Amino acid sequence: MDLPSSPFKPDRFPNLPAVPGVRIASCDAGVRYNGRLDLMLAVFDEGTSVGGVMTQSTTADAPVGWNRTALPRGTARALVVNSGNANVFTGKRGRVAVEKTASAVTEAVTCDALDVYVSSTGTIGEYLLEERITARISELYDALSDAAWEDAATAIMTTDTYPKGSTRKALIDGVPVVLSGIAKGSGMIAPDMATMLAYVMTDATLPANVLQTLTSRSADKSFNAITVDGDTSTSDTVLVFATGKTAHTPIENADDPKLDAFVTALDAIMIDLAQQVVKDGEGAQKFVEIRITGAETDAAARRIGLAVGNSPLVKTAIAGEDANWGRIVMAVGKAGEAADRDKMAIAIGGVHIAKNGEPVDGYDEAPVTAHMQGRDVEIDIDVGVGKGQATVWTCDLTHGYIDINGSYRT
Amino acid sequence: MDLPSSPFKPDRFPNLPAVPGVRIASCDAGVRYNGRLDLMLAVFDEGTSVGGVMTQSTTADAPVGWNRTALPRGTARALVVNSGNANVFTGKRGRVAVEKTASAVTEAVTCDALDVYVSSTGTIGEYLLEERITARISELYDALSDAAWEDAATAIMTTDTYPKGSTRKALIDGVPVVLSGIAKGSGMIAPDMATMLAYVMTDATLPANVLQTLTSRSADKSFNAITVDGDTSTSDTVLVFATGKTAHTPIENADDPKLDAFVTALDAIMIDLAQQVVKDGEGAQKFVEIRITGAETDAAARRIGLAVGNSPLVKTAIAGEDANWGRIVMAVGKAGEAADRDKMAIAIGGVHIAKNGEPVDGYDEAPVTAHMQGRDVEIDIDVGVGKGQATVWTCDLTHGYIDINGSYRT
Repeated sequence: MDLPSSPFKPDRFPNLPAVPGVRIASCDAGVRYNGRLDLMLAVFDEGTSVGGVMTQSTTADAPVGWNRTALPRGTARALVVNSGNANVFTGKRGRVAVEKTASAVTEAVTCDALDVYVSSTGTIGEYLLEERITARISELYDALSDAAWEDAATAIMTTDTYPKGSTRKALIDGVPVVLSGIAKGSGMIAPDMATMLAYVMTDATLPANVLQTLTSRSADKSFNAITVDGDTSTSDTVLVFATGKTAHTPIENADDPKLDAFVTALDAIMIDLAQQVVKDGEGAQKFVEIRITGAETDAAARRIGLAVGNSPLVKTAIAGEDANWGRIVMAVGKAGEAADRDKMAIAIGGVHIAKNGEPVDGYDEAPVTAHMQGRDVEIDIDVGVGKGQATVWTCDLTHGYIDINGSYRT
Repeated sequence: MDLPSSPFKPDRFPNLPAVPGVRIASCDAGVRYNGRLDLMLAVFDEGTSVGGVMTQSTTADAPVGWNRTALPRGTARALVVNSGNANVFTGKRGRVAVEKTASAVTEAVTCDALDVYVSSTGTIGEYLLEERITARISELYDALSDAAWEDAATAIMTTDTYPKGSTRKALIDGVPVVLSGIAKGSGMIAPDMATMLAYVMTDATLPANVLQTLTSRSADKSFNAITVDGDTSTSDTVLVFATGKTAHTPIENADDPKLDAFVTALDAIMIDLAQQVVKDGEGAQKFVEIRITGAETDAAARRIGLAVGNSPLVKTAIAGEDANWGRIVMAVGKAGEAADRDKMAIAIGGVHIAKNGEPVDGYDEAPVTAHMQGRDVEIDIDVGVGKGQATVWTCDLTHGYIDINGSYRT
């Protein structure tokens, strides 16, 4: 079936600058379909450190298992990603496929196997024909270039309707560094196909333990704060590679204030990519920002925000442009976090609908309805018990989601 | 909007026999709409005990708060239920509305206010005009009859497309008792309207503490094992009333083997009503039974079953008659309970698709697809770690759900 493009699809892919120490190439390997890019290889210069966060799923895929083993070493020389087949629930054969893929990259790059990071995204429960991948590695290696971002972002797509990239510059103690990243999404796990993958690359010089801390913190504020359908992928992977090509003051601590601008830039890229994933969510017609205040802790606020953002009743109301705040009350109530019903306040588009657990006297629905007819919907919820806060992003739940997921595979 | 009837709508309401000690009447009180039954009153003879379970929501409604206060007393003389307005998020005025309603019933019945149980279902966040209810109590009292079940089941409906009733007979130590019950559902919380309500009445003679234990256990096997959309209502209420009109051996312990037949009958009614709620789920076209085995505990098995039953990707695949077992693997993985990916087995319609974490050799999809084209879909999942098991019921996720919830209120 032909998927209509997201209304948020940008006119063009952003201009991602080269990151010193990173070279990339992509090709059509025919993993599942022919005539589309489905394999990318990134090669990093020696000295590259890596941080990452991966799915918590207990049925995680074979590549995630491989990366979990590799990550504590903190070094990286290559990243290989295929779309078309997620290599999930494929048992021992799936694990062998990952080993063979890493081995082919090892030969081309001349590096340790565990310096090769592997991701697969696509159908679950079908054996990956890894020879289609290994046969192309040498050719990809020869084609590496430092500006091939858009092809790479395209090669990792499944039901995504546009490639996703983001870039920022930052100073570390006065020395400029660049960060560029790509991501794919669609459903949190999309149609049978898919998963959420994101890769950010920078020429900053950061020890792996520092990079790991920064990656985890930034992922919490970005990819862990979005939801399309509440379905957690078996393959979710966020990796940040730092090539160490820039000679700035040595950094030994993730809390070093010299990193402030870098952290701001990393957060900005991760949030930008995460928001692009939501905006290209299956069937998405509206982009929703949910801001929670007054929770017991920031973590509680995020869980409340995700309960609202995952509620099918809230999401269908947004699709219907209906300022149905009663459903928001319901979703807060089911989150399992402390909330004081008699102190709660809810605003949509900046207009308070309820305060102190009751509808606001003389509430006029007209400006709220007008706000909901736009592409961007903003919801503020104060749950009245503490100082915890969080922002969560989601999309609406539309007929498009049913169309895509009720008929995709057949 | 006109809601199409569920394909599971029965030809007629079941024949519910009178329960000695219970009289019921219903009327059109115009709570929100006119020309439809929206208020029911049940009156119980003196000596009636009660057990109940209510929503865990932190934004629960005013009537739930009232019933929580009343329930520890264990006695009941009346039940009053309105549809059209849920009296949720209505602050102090909402609590006063409950008090006034109970007070009006108290006068008619001549009983303690806390012997009156109150439920409201319908719109959230609008003030209940309780005078429309209190004005009709005396008239309802005069109209009480012992066989008015179908009207009562109709009066408590919101977006339900048919009234739901169930009845069983049982022997307690050789003495026959009868159990009759009614329920309403639609969404777990339906459109803005709604909630899940169920009431069972019996002439058995049971102390309140015994009845409470039996009610909790039975609710766990029935109403706590169903899901339409994973959205927990602010008003969910299950109450079981025992009028004590039948003189059987005194029962002092919920584990008394003399209760075996009664427990079987109570479970059967609760499961029957719970399944009717699912079958009338918003937009439901298919009824799905998910059987989990091999979990660490029965509770873990239920959580895994509900993760599968709540997954939008699983539910849309079922709507599309697609035997997309990869999505089932994903949903098991996100449940947060122990599962051994390499020992998991999945069957649909009795046909094994995957065993030991891999697709079954020579798996033929044809009989599975044929099974999925029927109204009833059966999924068996063994997660390979222990002896815990549970059965969960759900429906598919269709365009009908989006239609109902994306446009209901406007």
